[in-house]
Parts: sequence; C-alpha cells; structure tokens
Amino acid sequence: MDETPGRPAAGRTARKREAILTAATGLFLRNGFHGTSMDEVASLAQVSKQTVYKQFADKEALFREIVEGVTGNSDAVVDLVTTAFGKAPATSRADLEERLRAVARAHLDAVLRPEVLSLRRLIIAEAEQFPDLARRYYEQAPSRGVDVVADCLRTYVDAGLVDADDLRLAAGHFAYLALAAVQDRALFIPTELPDRKERDRIAAAAARAFLAAHGTNRTEG
Amino acid sequence: MDETPGRPAAGRTARKREAILTAATGLFLRNGFHGTSMDEVASLAQVSKQTVYKQFADKEALFREIVEGVTGNSDAVVDLVTTAFGKAPATSRADLEERLRAVARAHLDAVLRPEVLSLRRLIIAEAEQFPDLARRYYEQAPSRGVDVVADCLRTYVDAGLVDADDLRLAAGHFAYLALAAVQDRALFIPTELPDRKERDRIAAAAARAFLAAHGTNRTEG
Repeated sequence: MDETPGRPAAGRTARKREAILTAATGLFLRNGFHGTSMDEVASLAQVSKQTVYKQFADKEALFREIVEGVTGNSDAVVDLVTTAFGKAPATSRADLEERLRAVARAHLDAVLRPEVLSLRRLIIAEAEQFPDLARRYYEQAPSRGVDVVADCLRTYVDAGLVDADDLRLAAGHFAYLALAAVQDRALFIPTELPDRKERDRIAAAAARAFLAAHGTNRTEG
Repeated sequence: MDETPGRPAAGRTARKREAILTAATGLFLRNGFHGTSMDEVASLAQVSKQTVYKQFADKEALFREIVEGVTGNSDAVVDLVTTAFGKAPATSRADLEERLRAVARAHLDAVLRPEVLSLRRLIIAEAEQFPDLARRYYEQAPSRGVDVVADCLRTYVDAGLVDADDLRLAAGHFAYLALAAVQDRALFIPTELPDRKERDRIAAAAARAFLAAHGTNRTEG
C-alpha cells in the first residue's frame, strides 16, 4: 500500500491522487462537507485510508483543493460571454439586442448545468465554515460574469447604444434579468430545469428589458 | 426525566419541546443537517436524549418540523409587499416609481436579514436530501414574493401604467432587479451586507429599470 517516492511510484501516486479527488468531488457534491467521511472517500477511490491521509492532511484540505481547483478554472465564463457577444461590434440596437439574447441564452445554459448547480449549492452551504473559499468562488464566478458583461458593454457605450451612467450596475441588471429567476428556482428545485423554449423566452425577455432600461434611443427602431 | 401525559406535565413537556426546537434551529442554521447531532441538540436544550426522541422520532423529523414551521409563516412577504405598494393606487408614473422604490427597499431589508439568509442557505444545502421541503420553501417564499408583486402590479396594468404582456415575468424582472445581485453576494459573503445608502441606490435603480422596461409611456413625465 505504501509508495516510496521515485519514478515508478510517481505515476501510481498521481493516479491514486486523481482517484481520491474524483471520489471526494462526487461525495462532497452529493452529501456536503459534513455528510462526507474520509472512510467513504477511501472506499470509493479504492485506496487505503492511509493513502488518503498521505495526500491530504485532513478532510478540510481535501475540500479546499477541490473547490479551489474548480474556482481557478473561471476563464470559461469569460470565453462564453465574449464569444456570444461576437467579435465585430453590433452597429444597431436591433443587432445588439440579438447579441444580448445570445449572451443570455449561453449564460443560462452554463449556470443550469447540474454540476455547476451542485457546486454552487455546496459552496453556499459551507460559506460560513469556509468564508475564504466562498468569497473566492463568488469573485471568480458570478461576480466575474458581471464584470465581463460590463467590459463587453463598454464598446456599446462608446458607440452610443448603451447608457453609461453606472455600467457595473447595468451589467448586473442584465445578468440577473437573464439568470436570477431560473437559477433561484433551480437551487431549490434542481430536478425541474426550464426547457429550450422557456430558456429562449427568458433570454429574449432579458435582452429586451435590458435595452429598454439601459439602451439609448439613438438608433432605436 | 419521564413525563406521563396529564395536566401538570403538559406545560413542562411543551416547554421542553420548545427548548429542543430552539436549540435545534440554532444548530441546524449554524452547522447544517449533517453537522448537527441529536446529542448536541439535547445538550443545548438541557434535556435528556430520551426526551428529544420522545418528541421527535429522529433528526429528520426534527429538521422537517423546523423548516415547515418557518415556511408556513409566509404571510410576512405578502404583508411587506402590499404595505409598501400602499393602499390608494398611484396615479402617475412618477408616483408608481416611488412606490416601487419603497417595495424594493423593504424587500431588500427582508431578504438580507441574517436569519433569513441562514435559512435560505440551509434549505439550498439540503435541497437534494429534502426536495419536498425545498420546493415548499421556494413556493412559499421567493416565488410567492413574485406572485404578490404581480398581483399588486395588476392595478397598474388596468390603469395603463404597466404593460401586461407577461405580468408574472415582468414581476420577476422587478423582484430580481431589486434583490438578485445583493442576495447572490450575501449567500457567498454573508458578513458584508450592503449599507443603507447602497440599498437605497439599488432599490431606486430597480424601480427605474423596471418602469423603463415594463412601464407604458402613457403618463410618462
């Protein structure tokens, strides 16, 4: 059961570490921090408990490694939003509304992925026990999403299509118009997610409401 | 430690039951379902473990009783919203905007109460283990809040101040414009709630954005 450090053992150690992380991720997401034991992690990963403790000092260290790993990978939201906004800027309000609809639609699909909802639920559940992790997740995921929207909208402020009074607040309006109602429901009722048609409807309504609230009249119609 | 049913014991039993519920509420909100044991409940309530089990079959029964008790008391959100909307209906868009600002502001204070945030966090955390409780909470709290806003807005549809295309969706836009950004942040970072000035700013922006998106132009200005 013991691996002494060195070439041949290194690969095996890495594989075991991977197996532990995979097993623990599944257990934490399903049963929470308190509902998961190191015994279960070892059993599911098919390694000894000593092997688990050789890799991770305790359950908290294991939990931190997993949440930080997921949180660090936050470029996905940036890519998703900037891609949906498109490269060449929209030149009319109608075109911008269509882009916003696409952004909202893509963002909705991203936040409604079951593993994203489970992770969100897990981090919220442990926000009082692991305040630093929860803050980092907030900053790297929902808050970063709003920042990226604000960055993308800046072009349209310059183009006179969007009002720049408070761009961060306006970007938050857009993001939460698109996501909040559905995400809120999904946190409580994860088994009934909106279908494509409903997501289309919500995304279109968010784009329209956002431009009514924060668009200028310069190129309206 | 045993109470046989009857007059003199009844009061004592009720008091013990109350002490158990109070202790368990605090522990569940702080440590979650899995992080709370019946031993701790008994110890904090200063009763024997047998007394706890005489009142509640198991930890799940105790958890259900507490969450259902809080969820049943959902008239508060109805009162809050209808009171802030005011009795005599607003007759101008400016007056309606002021009412909406007041509704948003009162609603913000309500959802940002630390015990409401903790309860929300607890129910979200246990949504997969107790789907019926989570659904009921969703229906009685956030969803009911949107319903009440929709009911209050109906007057203004009739008065020609609000567009009725999809009143439930519009009411959701209003509620989430007011609450979502702040509530989302508070779930992850419960120790830094927005101050009065910030709440005022968010409520005013939500009222303005909502009327821009869903108000008619009939009495604008």
